[in-house]
Amino acid sequence: MTRDLTITEVRLTPILVADPPLLNTQGVHQPYTPRLIVEVMTAGGVTGVGETYGDTKYLELARPFANKLVGRKVSDLNGLFTTADEVAVDASRVSGQVDVGGLRGVQTADKLRLSVVSGFEVACLDALGKALGLPVHALLGGKVRDAVEYSAYLFYKWADHPEGVACEKDDWGAAVDPAGVVAQARVFTERHGFTSFKLKGGVFPPEEEIAAIKALAAAFPGHPLRLDPNGAWSVATSLEVAEELGDVLEYLEDPALGTPAMAEVAARTSVPLATNMCVTTFAEIKEAFTKNAVQVVLSDHHYWGGLRNTQQLAAVCRTFGVGVSMHSNTHLGISLAAMTHVAATVPNLHHACDSHYPWQSEDVLTERLTFDGGKVAVSDAPGLGVELDRDRLALLHGRWLDDDGTHRDRDDTAAMRVADPDWVTPSVPRW
Amino acid sequence: MTRDLTITEVRLTPILVADPPLLNTQGVHQPYTPRLIVEVMTAGGVTGVGETYGDTKYLELARPFANKLVGRKVSDLNGLFTTADEVAVDASRVSGQVDVGGLRGVQTADKLRLSVVSGFEVACLDALGKALGLPVHALLGGKVRDAVEYSAYLFYKWADHPEGVACEKDDWGAAVDPAGVVAQARVFTERHGFTSFKLKGGVFPPEEEIAAIKALAAAFPGHPLRLDPNGAWSVATSLEVAEELGDVLEYLEDPALGTPAMAEVAARTSVPLATNMCVTTFAEIKEAFTKNAVQVVLSDHHYWGGLRNTQQLAAVCRTFGVGVSMHSNTHLGISLAAMTHVAATVPNLHHACDSHYPWQSEDVLTERLTFDGGKVAVSDAPGLGVELDRDRLALLHGRWLDDDGTHRDRDDTAAMRVADPDWVTPSVPRW
Repeated sequence: MTRDLTITEVRLTPILVADPPLLNTQGVHQPYTPRLIVEVMTAGGVTGVGETYGDTKYLELARPFANKLVGRKVSDLNGLFTTADEVAVDASRVSGQVDVGGLRGVQTADKLRLSVVSGFEVACLDALGKALGLPVHALLGGKVRDAVEYSAYLFYKWADHPEGVACEKDDWGAAVDPAGVVAQARVFTERHGFTSFKLKGGVFPPEEEIAAIKALAAAFPGHPLRLDPNGAWSVATSLEVAEELGDVLEYLEDPALGTPAMAEVAARTSVPLATNMCVTTFAEIKEAFTKNAVQVVLSDHHYWGGLRNTQQLAAVCRTFGVGVSMHSNTHLGISLAAMTHVAATVPNLHHACDSHYPWQSEDVLTERLTFDGGKVAVSDAPGLGVELDRDRLALLHGRWLDDDGTHRDRDDTAAMRVADPDWVTPSVPRW
Repeated sequence: MTRDLTITEVRLTPILVADPPLLNTQGVHQPYTPRLIVEVMTAGGVTGVGETYGDTKYLELARPFANKLVGRKVSDLNGLFTTADEVAVDASRVSGQVDVGGLRGVQTADKLRLSVVSGFEVACLDALGKALGLPVHALLGGKVRDAVEYSAYLFYKWADHPEGVACEKDDWGAAVDPAGVVAQARVFTERHGFTSFKLKGGVFPPEEEIAAIKALAAAFPGHPLRLDPNGAWSVATSLEVAEELGDVLEYLEDPALGTPAMAEVAARTSVPLATNMCVTTFAEIKEAFTKNAVQVVLSDHHYWGGLRNTQQLAAVCRTFGVGVSMHSNTHLGISLAAMTHVAATVPNLHHACDSHYPWQSEDVLTERLTFDGGKVAVSDAPGLGVELDRDRLALLHGRWLDDDGTHRDRDDTAAMRVADPDWVTPSVPRW
């Protein structure tokens, strides 16, 4: 193995992974969700892996972007952004509205590009680390902690997908009321040792979700709790919930949609507000921070443009006295490793990060990452410290190839219509 | 040479370097100025070099800090800050006022620590780059330009130091009026090819400095010009100068002292304001940016805490639509190389950087860095791409050892008193 860092080939593998029937304000997760696995090969014989969103609109950008990277070096991380800017984004892919799948804020061409860049940035960092014999955290300036804490990501869920197709069956059962939520939380603590809890809300009327949080507070006294209705509430409702739950909440996440509404809520409650919806790009920071609309930004390296941009976001937040933690969408072990490496380098990470990983029964790694006491140990192995399982990758890619299109673009609303043909995406505020 | 990145030894060498009699609002540069050269040695046999301020208050911190680094890795850059926090700062060293030597904003314990950290951070990056076979810019994500533009840093100056001691004599002659400033600018362009010009002001009454800038504008039509009185003016005077020079100035640098005064000026002129005095720490950013007090922040990696902090500052500026460029105090080639590496990685660098380097006839390198067309080429050699000249280093260290204390702590006011025994640091605003 030589040290030549030149990229000779980029391999893109779209896959479909099993996803449980988790409920959110737009609908329900489909049985399968798309992800893109990125492999970057160097002339020195090293391969780096990355992972990002796998919907068609991302795949459309990933291929031309990948072609431009051949001949460049994996160390040229700043260059990824200028290269990405050269890739045209189909205007029809950019709604300017909140995206349908994932509830992660407004869609813009830049954000679409950054979501693609991040998968490649992680793959380049993995390759660079392997080539240099350094863990990714060392390429980011070195870890300041040896393990990263995650929260239990609780969801209202059904026992089964409504499709009735032969899809992966999960062993979590249903959770559609306070008792179900508490039972789910207990399983999270038993399996993974989590000590803080986040409930995805916006599914049932606020009083039911208030009851669920109160039940959690009773079952886990003193543990940090969060509730995230994905902007489903009005300012008035947000304030009522904040009033009801102020004593037990670590923070309230995106109670209302958009910076002006969040600022209104923030001005009238002492409950900290977190967001992964109104501050999802650097362009949205100035207004939100100037208006004191949010107290915690939940970074997601996928759409912020990678691990180094996540560090920059953390620096901006630190400068303005705003907290930082991490958001999660459906992701596999490559991204969990990436999240853990960058989180280990952020000094001002004062809240447990979110992760969907416990919900993902499938992965593309030879060995799954594990949570010990709710924490993932920071790997000191070269690169990310993960290894691709080619058989698993081929299997999940085969599923993508065989798909009739139903699952290639995440659509929680469509999934809900299987159960309820009259279902439409609720208008906001829903309550 | 093995790849062991563990620090086995840190060598600190305080030196005195010749400095011409450059005038500023506090006084005049002494014939010699202190700098600290930092060398970090690894178990793998690599040595990295860094440079920072060399006054006693920095040396006092540097030694205990250096002792804490032995046994750590040069890749552990984030750890430098937590380690620095463990070093106690003598309260008597922290005035809370604008520092006497260098005019670089308020003095705080954190800033003193960061000024020390930066010398070590650069040395660690140099060592890491050499060990990995990568240039420092690649450790910072890779260059986005192949050369970095600098401006000609014009000073009012005397032909000779008033001391009359046997000190290095420069060949620039005097510059105490518009004709002298233009002549100096011509030498800068002839020797180094600079195309933009900054005049250190606050020395003569504003009308004389206005005349100097107008003379430069006539001599170099269309070239970017800047004037920096180091906060010597009142808000009213600042606005009068802005009015007089609005057509020819790229920006006005620190016309008035402090964020409130700068905000007042900024609100009433369209001339952009730059600063290296009211925004010199991350803690000062929020107020200044919220008040729109400055349009360009002039970073100085020495007191911002190194090259990676400079990148973070650039990210904060980019996020808030504030420009960024680089400030300079007296420095040698190690720091010029460091400045060039980080500047090469900052996408939003839209102004030529400042550098005192042309004024420094002495250096500690085997080969001086050169300006070609006003630009320094970005080195692709491992590390910073510079080599220490041990004989020169020993010579300049010997001068520091032999010094009776007169020059070990920069004091422009004391130097002025040699010429004018009645001189006191002017109260601000001076005009």
